[in-house]
Amino acid sequence: MDLEQILHEITQDMATRPDRGRVANYIPQLACIDPDQFAISVCLADGTQYSCGDADMSFSIQSVSKVFALALALGRVGDHLWTRVGREPSGQAFDSILLLEQEKGRPRNPFINAGAIVTTDTYLEGHSPAEALGGLMRFVREAADDEDIHIDDSVARSEIATGHRNFALAHYMLSHGNLRHAPDLTLGTYFHQCAIAMNTAQLARAGRFLMNSPDLVRMLSPGRVRRINALMITCGQYDGSGDFAYRVGLPGKSGVGGGILVIAPGQASIAVWSPGLNHYGNSHLGTLAVETLARDTGWSIFG
Amino acid sequence: MDLEQILHEITQDMATRPDRGRVANYIPQLACIDPDQFAISVCLADGTQYSCGDADMSFSIQSVSKVFALALALGRVGDHLWTRVGREPSGQAFDSILLLEQEKGRPRNPFINAGAIVTTDTYLEGHSPAEALGGLMRFVREAADDEDIHIDDSVARSEIATGHRNFALAHYMLSHGNLRHAPDLTLGTYFHQCAIAMNTAQLARAGRFLMNSPDLVRMLSPGRVRRINALMITCGQYDGSGDFAYRVGLPGKSGVGGGILVIAPGQASIAVWSPGLNHYGNSHLGTLAVETLARDTGWSIFG
Amino acid sequence: MDLEQILHEITQDMATRPDRGRVANYIPQLACIDPDQFAISVCLADGTQYSCGDADMSFSIQSVSKVFALALALGRVGDHLWTRVGREPSGQAFDSILLLEQEKGRPRNPFINAGAIVTTDTYLEGHSPAEALGGLMRFVREAADDEDIHIDDSVARSEIATGHRNFALAHYMLSHGNLRHAPDLTLGTYFHQCAIAMNTAQLARAGRFLMNSPDLVRMLSPGRVRRINALMITCGQYDGSGDFAYRVGLPGKSGVGGGILVIAPGQASIAVWSPGLNHYGNSHLGTLAVETLARDTGWSIFG
Amino acid sequence: MDLEQILHEITQDMATRPDRGRVANYIPQLACIDPDQFAISVCLADGTQYSCGDADMSFSIQSVSKVFALALALGRVGDHLWTRVGREPSGQAFDSILLLEQEKGRPRNPFINAGAIVTTDTYLEGHSPAEALGGLMRFVREAADDEDIHIDDSVARSEIATGHRNFALAHYMLSHGNLRHAPDLTLGTYFHQCAIAMNTAQLARAGRFLMNSPDLVRMLSPGRVRRINALMITCGQYDGSGDFAYRVGLPGKSGVGGGILVIAPGQASIAVWSPGLNHYGNSHLGTLAVETLARDTGWSIFG
Repeated sequence: MDLEQILHEITQDMATRPDRGRVANYIPQLACIDPDQFAISVCLADGTQYSCGDADMSFSIQSVSKVFALALALGRVGDHLWTRVGREPSGQAFDSILLLEQEKGRPRNPFINAGAIVTTDTYLEGHSPAEALGGLMRFVREAADDEDIHIDDSVARSEIATGHRNFALAHYMLSHGNLRHAPDLTLGTYFHQCAIAMNTAQLARAGRFLMNSPDLVRMLSPGRVRRINALMITCGQYDGSGDFAYRVGLPGKSGVGGGILVIAPGQASIAVWSPGLNHYGNSHLGTLAVETLARDTGWSIFG
Repeated sequence: MDLEQILHEITQDMATRPDRGRVANYIPQLACIDPDQFAISVCLADGTQYSCGDADMSFSIQSVSKVFALALALGRVGDHLWTRVGREPSGQAFDSILLLEQEKGRPRNPFINAGAIVTTDTYLEGHSPAEALGGLMRFVREAADDEDIHIDDSVARSEIATGHRNFALAHYMLSHGNLRHAPDLTLGTYFHQCAIAMNTAQLARAGRFLMNSPDLVRMLSPGRVRRINALMITCGQYDGSGDFAYRVGLPGKSGVGGGILVIAPGQASIAVWSPGLNHYGNSHLGTLAVETLARDTGWSIFG
Repeated sequence: MDLEQILHEITQDMATRPDRGRVANYIPQLACIDPDQFAISVCLADGTQYSCGDADMSFSIQSVSKVFALALALGRVGDHLWTRVGREPSGQAFDSILLLEQEKGRPRNPFINAGAIVTTDTYLEGHSPAEALGGLMRFVREAADDEDIHIDDSVARSEIATGHRNFALAHYMLSHGNLRHAPDLTLGTYFHQCAIAMNTAQLARAGRFLMNSPDLVRMLSPGRVRRINALMITCGQYDGSGDFAYRVGLPGKSGVGGGILVIAPGQASIAVWSPGLNHYGNSHLGTLAVETLARDTGWSIFG
Repeated sequence: MDLEQILHEITQDMATRPDRGRVANYIPQLACIDPDQFAISVCLADGTQYSCGDADMSFSIQSVSKVFALALALGRVGDHLWTRVGREPSGQAFDSILLLEQEKGRPRNPFINAGAIVTTDTYLEGHSPAEALGGLMRFVREAADDEDIHIDDSVARSEIATGHRNFALAHYMLSHGNLRHAPDLTLGTYFHQCAIAMNTAQLARAGRFLMNSPDLVRMLSPGRVRRINALMITCGQYDGSGDFAYRVGLPGKSGVGGGILVIAPGQASIAVWSPGLNHYGNSHLGTLAVETLARDTGWSIFG
């Protein structure tokens, strides 16, 4: 298997696709991103790494950050997290508030917005936002083995000013007692978390601890890694998770910045980026690219 | 790894559990089953097979049959099936009709009742119910390599007389043009499909084609097997699918008869049975048993 | 006030309207009705009666029959009916099944389809369908003082063959124990009830007992009449009830045949008919006509 | 008819009722109100006024204020208001956010919280909160002919600190562009509006303009008065509106402070107060009292 050649062909194929999805327009700082960009990076279990396309372009990882936040929160409070958030696919859009009403303020899972806000609220406990974000960045930088990863403050500020739906979710959960801090505080932290900027090479490296490679067991126990992968396969692409599992066959977590982190357990950590989104809010070409990659490499968790 | 010993210990452990779930009471023929029963069987890739507990007791496989029906329907009409049914977790109970209204008669996935009725409606096309069921039984018997597997007619009749919720689903889909036969015809076939009786030894053998073992590729292509496994992990336990993926880490499909078929791709086909159900309608001790088995064997699709 | 002149002007106005709504297309026998037809009839408390337009054309009263069925059922079982059906607006379409799931098979009110099926199931109790319909027709004929009113059998048969949504509702309620007869029996009766044919002159006369005119108190007590009017104002036009109350200011009950019965308590019983429907399933021009009539006459229950 | 005697008997009857509902506990300032209190006041069309019970005790009118706010907003922007809020019963609880998601931020009617927030946002336009509230208080004081009516600031502050559900609604509508001011501003105004304090004598007087008495036509045109009454009968008691219309037969608007304003068009303006609520959030004994009053006086809009 010539992985370099596979990535090259995928990148070429993606460059010619006329249907590139639609760039997220509800976050002003993301609305102006050029949809023609595409990048893919792969880290193998043996440490080798391959990239193709715009792999040195930084993008806003947005909801991909929910994986790191979940790992951090589970490290902090363990299974206690599950008293405040569920582990089931919601069957609804990423920013839906409907089930929150029916289920009394307890979000379905940590990968929809409501659940991720609870996760942030959890790792924020006992800390200032700056300290909490400091802890998260230490985790991400250690995972990626790269001290250069930073938060794009302008994106965070843009979301604080316009993220009304997330404020609605936070206030709604607060009304059910499922938020421990003022919405401003938790969401300030959450929006900064979402504004972490990486390129695909960094993101693929940062995802290696989810491959269950033995040398990264210090970051998270194998059991917890497996469970985060389970949540990624059932909930990682919102109400497009079933389709992603069906087509790609690997756990992944997407973000509205157009990035997707995909894990082939024991084999590879994959990051793909293309800003145009499908109607679930996941990268349109990114999904197509990892579907092709999985087919060409034979990587699948399903045998 | 001493699999025999592991199965023995699990069976002993389950025998002592006081909380055994509740036997399904809405199907009269199932309501009188003794909840103290438990059985587990495992078929390995090398053909060896292990069983423990009441592994020669036949039970009604009920919704586990949806996996065989899906395999048959995909073999018949291929991806055309997906024009009539989705591939996403519903986030609702197995017999919910709510999303059918919002989504104009198109069920979310083939493992909730509405979707399974469409699957039956699909493999029924061009056949009488008797012929269609004959085709299904040939498939199941070949998969299990066992000509003795049969349909329990009294269970089927019991469900025809009492399965009002399923009649509602069928009529509702018919009102949206998503049923090709009269509800009586499709549901008559569907209830007989659900009334297939097996013991865990038979069911574990019947599930081997989903392990992607090379000698059973004649039954279904490896790509299709992977995709059925993907549907099992995201949708196989209804609104308990996320929790099952998290705890067990393997694709599975449950039935209200208390059976669960679980696949460790490339490694094992597992059948477990205990009639008491948890509140999602999945076997309570069965889930616990395969969770233990996965932990003790290290089988997981998540690395 | 020259009522004859008012009705004449309304009829002329309606004749020139280009937007006539859309004729119900899901009942084959109704789909071919000419949408240019319009009729209006008014019975005053003093017994005088005025008609204009196609007032001798019979039409299928459809859901307007729910008012007569409710009066009959309340006469038979009294407030016991409310153990099986609610008295609240549903906020959903007339044939919605969604709330039935959330509220365990108990319909919100007797004027949406599910609730009307329960009402029919109630007056059917202890009778054959023919007897039950005989009782209903006696009630309607006595109310209208007209023995010529009949049921259009071809419409009833058309609905039996195509009313899949109503079968879904009936089976769903049966699954919750809120239907006492087989769906075929109750729905056979229900579809015949809906297929009562009248012209507006007959319908306006048939509605006089809802004006609380003293000479019709033998049909229903004043207290019950008031309560049926209360249900008409809050629930009589499905999810368009609020708008109807706001614009027209009088209780009414619509049917997909294009008829509306409207009551000005103590003053008038009004029937209007025009086959084209608005998007709630209520007569588009019929609503407009009674809005104009109410404004021109000053009839309003709101002072 | 001896109205004084009727009110006296009702008040005595209510004093002996053991089931008094439950005092709203989610607004701290209201949670400590003595549930044994009861008052009722009636203003007749001829200007005479009767009161019984604790009619000089001030209470927080809460959502009864939505009627005055609606009258004010309609006076300001006319039917333009209906571009932002509907006129249909929601079929959901007063603080539900569910339909807001399905209907893209447009509340069903101005009497549920979301719709009332939009109404406040409307009369706030072009003004500071202090000015806007000044305008509202002028309207209320003129209606009641009483300059002593004031806002209870401690209640308003209590709600600002704890009204998380309303903040969720406001942010959610803002996310759909259906709020013109910052949530803090609109809700600050809204909570002060809800904190208007009156006794039943004042509230009954303040409601006279809704009777369509000729001498108060300066406050609102007869047509608009009828329409507000229409909204009160279909939506005034949230998801208990149908039951209220059925039992009481008069338009009314309730508040969680335990007050209800009820209108017998052309005849009487009625205010009742008892702090214990039924499960819809409407005064339990208040509803019972006006049901008895309507029966004993024969007041009904339904003939």
